[in-house]
Amino acid sequence: MITANARAVFNPEGPFQLTTIDRRDIQPHDVLIEIKYAGICHSDIHTARGEWGPVNYPLVPGHEISGIVAKVGTAVTKYSVGDRVGVGCMVDSCGECVNCHKGEEQYCLSGNTGTYGSIDRYGQYTQGGYSTHIVVTEDFVVRIPDAMELDAAAPLLCAGITTYSPLRHWGAAPGKKVAVVGLGGLGHMAVKLAHAMGAEVTVLSQSLKKKEDGLRLGADHYYATNDPETFAKLAGAFDLIINTVSAKVDLNAYLSLLALDGALVNVGAPADPLSVHVMSLIGHRRTFAGSMIGGIRETQEMLDFCAEHQIVPEIEVISANQIDEAWERVLASDVRYRFVIDISTMEHE
Amino acid sequence: MITANARAVFNPEGPFQLTTIDRRDIQPHDVLIEIKYAGICHSDIHTARGEWGPVNYPLVPGHEISGIVAKVGTAVTKYSVGDRVGVGCMVDSCGECVNCHKGEEQYCLSGNTGTYGSIDRYGQYTQGGYSTHIVVTEDFVVRIPDAMELDAAAPLLCAGITTYSPLRHWGAAPGKKVAVVGLGGLGHMAVKLAHAMGAEVTVLSQSLKKKEDGLRLGADHYYATNDPETFAKLAGAFDLIINTVSAKVDLNAYLSLLALDGALVNVGAPADPLSVHVMSLIGHRRTFAGSMIGGIRETQEMLDFCAEHQIVPEIEVISANQIDEAWERVLASDVRYRFVIDISTMEHE
Repeated sequence: MITANARAVFNPEGPFQLTTIDRRDIQPHDVLIEIKYAGICHSDIHTARGEWGPVNYPLVPGHEISGIVAKVGTAVTKYSVGDRVGVGCMVDSCGECVNCHKGEEQYCLSGNTGTYGSIDRYGQYTQGGYSTHIVVTEDFVVRIPDAMELDAAAPLLCAGITTYSPLRHWGAAPGKKVAVVGLGGLGHMAVKLAHAMGAEVTVLSQSLKKKEDGLRLGADHYYATNDPETFAKLAGAFDLIINTVSAKVDLNAYLSLLALDGALVNVGAPADPLSVHVMSLIGHRRTFAGSMIGGIRETQEMLDFCAEHQIVPEIEVISANQIDEAWERVLASDVRYRFVIDISTMEHE
Repeated sequence: MITANARAVFNPEGPFQLTTIDRRDIQPHDVLIEIKYAGICHSDIHTARGEWGPVNYPLVPGHEISGIVAKVGTAVTKYSVGDRVGVGCMVDSCGECVNCHKGEEQYCLSGNTGTYGSIDRYGQYTQGGYSTHIVVTEDFVVRIPDAMELDAAAPLLCAGITTYSPLRHWGAAPGKKVAVVGLGGLGHMAVKLAHAMGAEVTVLSQSLKKKEDGLRLGADHYYATNDPETFAKLAGAFDLIINTVSAKVDLNAYLSLLALDGALVNVGAPADPLSVHVMSLIGHRRTFAGSMIGGIRETQEMLDFCAEHQIVPEIEVISANQIDEAWERVLASDVRYRFVIDISTMEHE
């Protein structure tokens, strides 16, 4: 058994406490990673607070992990000690179902094994990246390109792939008009990625508060959704809308912004159902769809794409004892655009 | 001006009365059609009864029209007197917008001109196929293949193209599993067409009442949706679901039947909005979409496909003085599967 230091919550209210957790002994295909950085994702907060279902406490969140390989199992072929690697939202899947065979492990028919809060194939609760070490089977580890800093790489493992995958799947490319709803952790990555893919990018944000930022990140246009003129002006304008907002929105208003065969893709899931006027879809053969992270192969592709296009998230690096404060700021949308925990600060209270 | 005999409703309650209507003088690109048959579509009833908005009475419904060219305008190149032709749900569009240029006139950005109940480019209310003659610009006329009877051809102009288009667009083909929700006028065409395209076809109907019919029409499987076991058994089973039911359904239950990247496509529009759990979509990158008839080019393609595969709707031919009764039977789902009015009976009370 490997003992790792970690920050955990012991109940829905928190706060984080320094603790130790056990990582399994390295199996033949396992990689032991010394974690260097872990991003803070809004879903960490939802999960830890029990908003998405019952939680087994203590819980160590974190599924945007970057680090260095510290040890490898006897059968590992892809990684060596010293390699710069990342782990995202899942650490295992059945490997045998039709979706796993397609390389879409995130849609594993048995359910993928989440990086934290899941039960793994050894019957253990998984614990995430707010910790010093993690043991992961090599098939769920990706390589971080040399040109990319480890701190900035971390958020790509969730915010990056969550936006990259639907942009690719629904064909963001030159000549395509892509709108991004919400300019937060996911939204700012969607803007950078869609811009790098050659699409014409529009940000649809509640207000114009972050307009300067949005244009700097690569958006061609920026509109405030609290201005009703926006919806009239942009009717039928987009081929693809990536909705990064998990709160309930007026879906039919956004659907009206799609051109023929356009798709509105949710990457966040509001707790409550949304109301869809079917005529909004039928009128222009529009699609309302959802997308969840991406497969391992595509996650590697995304990292390589980001390295090639020199894309990294905008981050604010914090120490381990600032996590509680950072969570409050995430909830207040007071972050541009992703907090990343410097795990070297983990052991110092 | 050309005078046609017609059956019209003069108020939401009906009944139909014999009347005469004026058809415009033939313009250079116009075709005068002597109507032989007109199908009865459920939407005729919704429209005539004012359920889809205000109506300009008297109204002559009918957008499943087959007949013979009786006269052509001076500039007509595609048709000659004596040709067997059809007219569907639209008789004109702007011809200039991006969607018209794509051959998707049904999604014309200015709105296509409906075969009845619309205002055409001459400022006149359009009147439909429950009449002896109609004048239509040649671009909105299709050719009925020689091998096809005119009576059975009529319903293809709406029920046929409405199901053919989404089946093609979402790739019904060998190796694909297609479910058809509802075995009515549209549903029975969807079954025949999907089967002819080589897909494995399942009917999802409220009960097993029409099971024998469904299998005879080409379905491989038939399930009752009033049996809760059905939804458990078929979870994740389909690549494509064509929902022909306009009534409100439990959409999330049907979405759960889709495999990875599967699409549920509504071809009917319930008056009330539907409730969608976004997680139903995100979990397997599913799509909820809508589709409306098809373009003129695709309508011709559909007719040719049907002729090639010897597909025709199952029809019950009625005389003009049976329309009121037929409408009541449509509302009671007591038709297998489409009423077609024999227009030669139009003048006899």
